Amino acid sequence: MAGGVTEEERRARAALTRVVEPGDEHGGRWLRELGAVGLLRRLTSASYEHDPLTGAGEQRVHGFRARAARADPERDLAAVEACGGRFVVPGDPEWPSQLDDLGDARPVGLWVRGRPDLRRWALRSVAVVGARACTPYGAHMAATLASGLAERGWVVVSGAAFGVDGAAHRGALAAGGATVAVLACGVDRAYPRGHAELIGRIAEQGLVVGELPPGSHPTPSRFILRNRVIAALTRGTVVVEAEYRSGSLVTARAAQRLGRFTMGVPGPATSGLSAGVHELLRGEAELVTDAAEVAELVGDIGELAPPRRGPVLPRDLLDPAGARVLEALPARGTAATAGDIARDAATTVDEALGRLYELHALGFVERLGDGWQLTAQAVRRPNARRGGA
Amino acid sequence: MAGGVTEEERRARAALTRVVEPGDEHGGRWLRELGAVGLLRRLTSASYEHDPLTGAGEQRVHGFRARAARADPERDLAAVEACGGRFVVPGDPEWPSQLDDLGDARPVGLWVRGRPDLRRWALRSVAVVGARACTPYGAHMAATLASGLAERGWVVVSGAAFGVDGAAHRGALAAGGATVAVLACGVDRAYPRGHAELIGRIAEQGLVVGELPPGSHPTPSRFILRNRVIAALTRGTVVVEAEYRSGSLVTARAAQRLGRFTMGVPGPATSGLSAGVHELLRGEAELVTDAAEVAELVGDIGELAPPRRGPVLPRDLLDPAGARVLEALPARGTAATAGDIARDAATTVDEALGRLYELHALGFVERLGDGWQLTAQAVRRPNARRGGA
Repeated sequence: MAGGVTEEERRARAALTRVVEPGDEHGGRWLRELGAVGLLRRLTSASYEHDPLTGAGEQRVHGFRARAARADPERDLAAVEACGGRFVVPGDPEWPSQLDDLGDARPVGLWVRGRPDLRRWALRSVAVVGARACTPYGAHMAATLASGLAERGWVVVSGAAFGVDGAAHRGALAAGGATVAVLACGVDRAYPRGHAELIGRIAEQGLVVGELPPGSHPTPSRFILRNRVIAALTRGTVVVEAEYRSGSLVTARAAQRLGRFTMGVPGPATSGLSAGVHELLRGEAELVTDAAEVAELVGDIGELAPPRRGPVLPRDLLDPAGARVLEALPARGTAATAGDIARDAATTVDEALGRLYELHALGFVERLGDGWQLTAQAVRRPNARRGGA
Repeated sequence: MAGGVTEEERRARAALTRVVEPGDEHGGRWLRELGAVGLLRRLTSASYEHDPLTGAGEQRVHGFRARAARADPERDLAAVEACGGRFVVPGDPEWPSQLDDLGDARPVGLWVRGRPDLRRWALRSVAVVGARACTPYGAHMAATLASGLAERGWVVVSGAAFGVDGAAHRGALAAGGATVAVLACGVDRAYPRGHAELIGRIAEQGLVVGELPPGSHPTPSRFILRNRVIAALTRGTVVVEAEYRSGSLVTARAAQRLGRFTMGVPGPATSGLSAGVHELLRGEAELVTDAAEVAELVGDIGELAPPRRGPVLPRDLLDPAGARVLEALPARGTAATAGDIARDAATTVDEALGRLYELHALGFVERLGDGWQLTAQAVRRPNARRGGA
């Protein structure tokens, strides 16, 4: 978890997640100019007469300083560790560098619960979002798309809300697939309450992430700003059902601005819950009706990760747990179930599945029916590449 | 009805509609090279040893000659006149010149029933087509689109089939609007039989047109080839519901090739009857959900007829019936119903409506609520233009 990031830097960023609201570009600019440690030092120093920050307005800086004085990063870091989580910051090997596309609105850091590696999962992820008050058709389409994407080795990212989001997470889980919930509150909290059990399962089998420190509450603006993280993290966003002016359209437009694929599932022209999607589709968004169409579209990009071209890492740079799972796969041409692989790797099925999805993102393994097999590239001594790297 | 077309030419073309099947590009090329009178003379001459047609295969020419020998254009022309119709050919003032975009697949001529002027109506027309076995949703959308288009002064063109076509014609008629049925059989026949009453009403209040001479039966290939006429006649084609590989997609693709607008109405991704439409929408077609969106799109073209820029004809070039209806409109700022206008023009309501739609296409009148009023341009002495024309 260390990488090139100092503990002082990590602590400073943890503190700043209590100071800078998600998406605050002014805060992000100061952070970029002064560094996390430098910014926190200014905000907590006794005097700030000649502080460059004052150019931003006395009152604003006063609020920042008040929040910085109350921040207790050790307590927050301990709290996230207590629920099996961690705090990932830019510079960490696990940091999803596509978030850097957000510029000064980039998250200060991400609070993460769950075993899998966030960066590797995000490399091969698609957002499935939509209306909370969706129709049975919308819930069906979200679940079916998510299952189909999971079966194709794609990670399904959503916001854990009622309606389309929940159906998407459940669809991915039902297919034994990978899913990530991006929350607008602390990752130790379950919001909405009615999704406590679902969010718990996602933390067990997938990832629950958020910008806000443990204990934080969601607010309307935090919901809206959370959407930019969903858009930036993924290769594309599918909107399943959305009214005019809905939050899902914010995610879709953010995805568009970030150069990600924006997709929409059509519905009856008579349905108000499809009106927002149709509006998107009359613009730049692509019409999709099933997971194969989504995968075909987002799979084309190839720039973030080239899974079709074989492993992106030499095999011996895998971490020990990943390497053990890879070793547990039978010779190419034979598939094994996650259960068999877990037994041979001496780990749990959940852990094995998490590692298999990472290995999939890295191009080492692929799905074959209900099982997993080595890719042709994984067999062809990919370590030979290392000399060139 | 005369124009610059000789009676010999019209008779020859009438005969050739019994000889050359709709869409036969070889027949069309010979027709272009020899002219209608010349081609018919060759086909009916006693000897054809050194005939240039023989290059096309002895058997083919034999079939052409056999059909030409049996043709009786006087009888066909009398038959169409007996049911209140006429035979319109290239060169006639009523010929819709956009059909020339079909090249050698251009119809030899069009058999027409109904009072309105086909060319003027076609200038401001949209095709609404789709599945015969449509869902209630498809029928609803077809009827609603057609009504909305009719209310905006657009002429709705379709194929008089069961399902979407019938719903589109009925929707236009229900709004007191203009509609054209393009048949794959003789215009004196009602196909399908179950639509005899509907086709009769269209002939009364709108237009029934076809390439085939009176008495002709429809065949599967005639249905498919009829679609190119629908596509070419209109500014754009809206597909409401269509399965993969359906005839409506043929119309849509023909429209695309001809540079017309191609539009599709989305539906549930779970519906096989929307699958063909979604396929179109994943290509070049535009997604539309209501008549306003269709009108906005096709209204942009402006090249075929510029109704927004005012009358395209000086007022005193209107035919006497059109001029009488125009005279019957009250001063600008006041609208009159078609009934009032018919009374003042001393004609029937059907006739008045037909003329009003022509005047609308020409930019003289516009809808105001349930009534009609003069456009600003019609009032501003458009005859002043004449000196410049």
